[in-house]
Amino acid sequence: MKEKILQELKSHAGFYISGEEISGSLQVSRTAVWKYINQLKDMGYVIESQTKKGYRLVESPDSLLPQEMKGNINTEVIGQNLKFFEQVDSTNLYAKRIAEGGFEDGTVIMADEQLNGRGRMGRTWASPKGKGIWMTIMLKPKISPADASKVTLLTACAVCKAIEEISGLYTQIKWPNDIVLNGKKLCGILTEMSAEIDEINYLIIGIGVNVNIDLEDFPHELQAIATSIKIEKGDMIIRKELAAAIINNFERYYKGFIMTGSIKDYINEYKERSAILGKEVRVTSSTLELQGTVVDISEEGQLQLELCDGSIKEIISGEVSVRGLTGYIS
Amino acid sequence: MKEKILQELKSHAGFYISGEEISGSLQVSRTAVWKYINQLKDMGYVIESQTKKGYRLVESPDSLLPQEMKGNINTEVIGQNLKFFEQVDSTNLYAKRIAEGGFEDGTVIMADEQLNGRGRMGRTWASPKGKGIWMTIMLKPKISPADASKVTLLTACAVCKAIEEISGLYTQIKWPNDIVLNGKKLCGILTEMSAEIDEINYLIIGIGVNVNIDLEDFPHELQAIATSIKIEKGDMIIRKELAAAIINNFERYYKGFIMTGSIKDYINEYKERSAILGKEVRVTSSTLELQGTVVDISEEGQLQLELCDGSIKEIISGEVSVRGLTGYIS
Repeated sequence: MKEKILQELKSHAGFYISGEEISGSLQVSRTAVWKYINQLKDMGYVIESQTKKGYRLVESPDSLLPQEMKGNINTEVIGQNLKFFEQVDSTNLYAKRIAEGGFEDGTVIMADEQLNGRGRMGRTWASPKGKGIWMTIMLKPKISPADASKVTLLTACAVCKAIEEISGLYTQIKWPNDIVLNGKKLCGILTEMSAEIDEINYLIIGIGVNVNIDLEDFPHELQAIATSIKIEKGDMIIRKELAAAIINNFERYYKGFIMTGSIKDYINEYKERSAILGKEVRVTSSTLELQGTVVDISEEGQLQLELCDGSIKEIISGEVSVRGLTGYIS
Repeated sequence: MKEKILQELKSHAGFYISGEEISGSLQVSRTAVWKYINQLKDMGYVIESQTKKGYRLVESPDSLLPQEMKGNINTEVIGQNLKFFEQVDSTNLYAKRIAEGGFEDGTVIMADEQLNGRGRMGRTWASPKGKGIWMTIMLKPKISPADASKVTLLTACAVCKAIEEISGLYTQIKWPNDIVLNGKKLCGILTEMSAEIDEINYLIIGIGVNVNIDLEDFPHELQAIATSIKIEKGDMIIRKELAAAIINNFERYYKGFIMTGSIKDYINEYKERSAILGKEVRVTSSTLELQGTVVDISEEGQLQLELCDGSIKEIISGEVSVRGLTGYIS
């Protein structure tokens, strides 16, 4: 009902609508209308009320509610089913819980706050309330598990594009799944799947973007390595616009991949945005530690590392540090 | 409590134990003892009761209860945590539901009956009550999703070995994941995983073995293509012995794989048991239909198919039919 009342207010954009009129068209009591209006005010909506005239929506908060998002989304599939939570443990965890029971392809889960946001390898991802985009796109692609890395790669391109459209900031991609600005982490992508050996049951892509986070909002240990759009731009941006731009761009890139089965159309864009191509790096994982120069990134998303003996080593996974003046920097 | 009373009866194997004694050592009323004894009788345990002497366990049913299984299991990890259900939708589905909350590596889920047993690609798997082994092994291997197929392959070897040990029957493997006898399906393996791009969160291996199923128990459409140990051997076997042998053998093979990161020690065994190596086959999938001769199976579990032009095509997934006198037979 709250959503329907908001819709009524929006359809009278800038003008008054009487409580009686709302009550009549939605078939609820005027007391109920008054109660819901107060709830909307609590959510940050600025609503003027005047005796005899009724209610007028003056300002909407920076909300990711589906009814706020819908006007900005122009997709066919992705985000057509949109679930929003004020608070969730993690949008990926939520997605995994509902996935086995079946879901609409392209469902998007969004949250204002994650209590247990996670990055790769089970790491914590800070997700303060109302200051970022914490979302998960749920997909059922008919591809093999080996091709899942391509979806991570195209997602990185789509998110960079969306950030550029909305904020004007040009971001880079730090292989495999981080989006960075001035060498600091702005966004992480966590792709997870449920699969048989040769077929994906479902694929979920968690996207966390630090949008309107102030430096002091970050845990102390992240302040030197993380950043946000607000910090870099000096200005807040409207989250729903960026979230919608991510959804819109993602659909475009993903559709291209599904139609061709390949990301060859995007690999150059990915490489242009690479923060490590041509750089001297150190790659570490549980099984290896290597130094070399990144000479290429394959269409499967694998790093081509030239070692000091001139040989090329293909790297599937690992943590990359880039060599700076004072040593290797994560 | 039922389990503890069973334990008491078993520890007096063949001899009487009085209701008073059981009641005293387990701190329950004699009425309760009587109630649980009746429940055990309902489960198929043959228990004699004589006034003054008490109870005597004469015969145990072909049960997969953990306390029945334990004496036959000699592993360190696999099956040390054993969960048994009289009825479940599917042991793989159950495993997936509990997996995200955390589980002990090597946990085994067993059921007497599956109401919604599944094979590859969501197909139905007939799992009649008390007549088969319907189990799932839950693992947390530190391997990449690309290596999951190796675990399917070694599982097939371990199950064949276990069937041979317990029943004397020599079974073959029909790539990728069926165990066959006289060209009919005896066992299916369904490997599923939850993974990030480069790391498995968890891997579950569903194993369904048709043990004491009579031909008329199979749905009509399966009677020509499915079989059971009882049908082939003409005799019933004790399910818990086979289930334990699968668990014991699986641990041995799996341990070897985890220690070396490779299945090179098992690939020859897998190929020796192959029902399709050297045969003319047709391979179909959603994206291809090919005919050729199977010339090899790689250590990654991929089929090497020689086409009529002499070229070799590597096949990751598909359905194989073998060419017989009257055409290709599934």
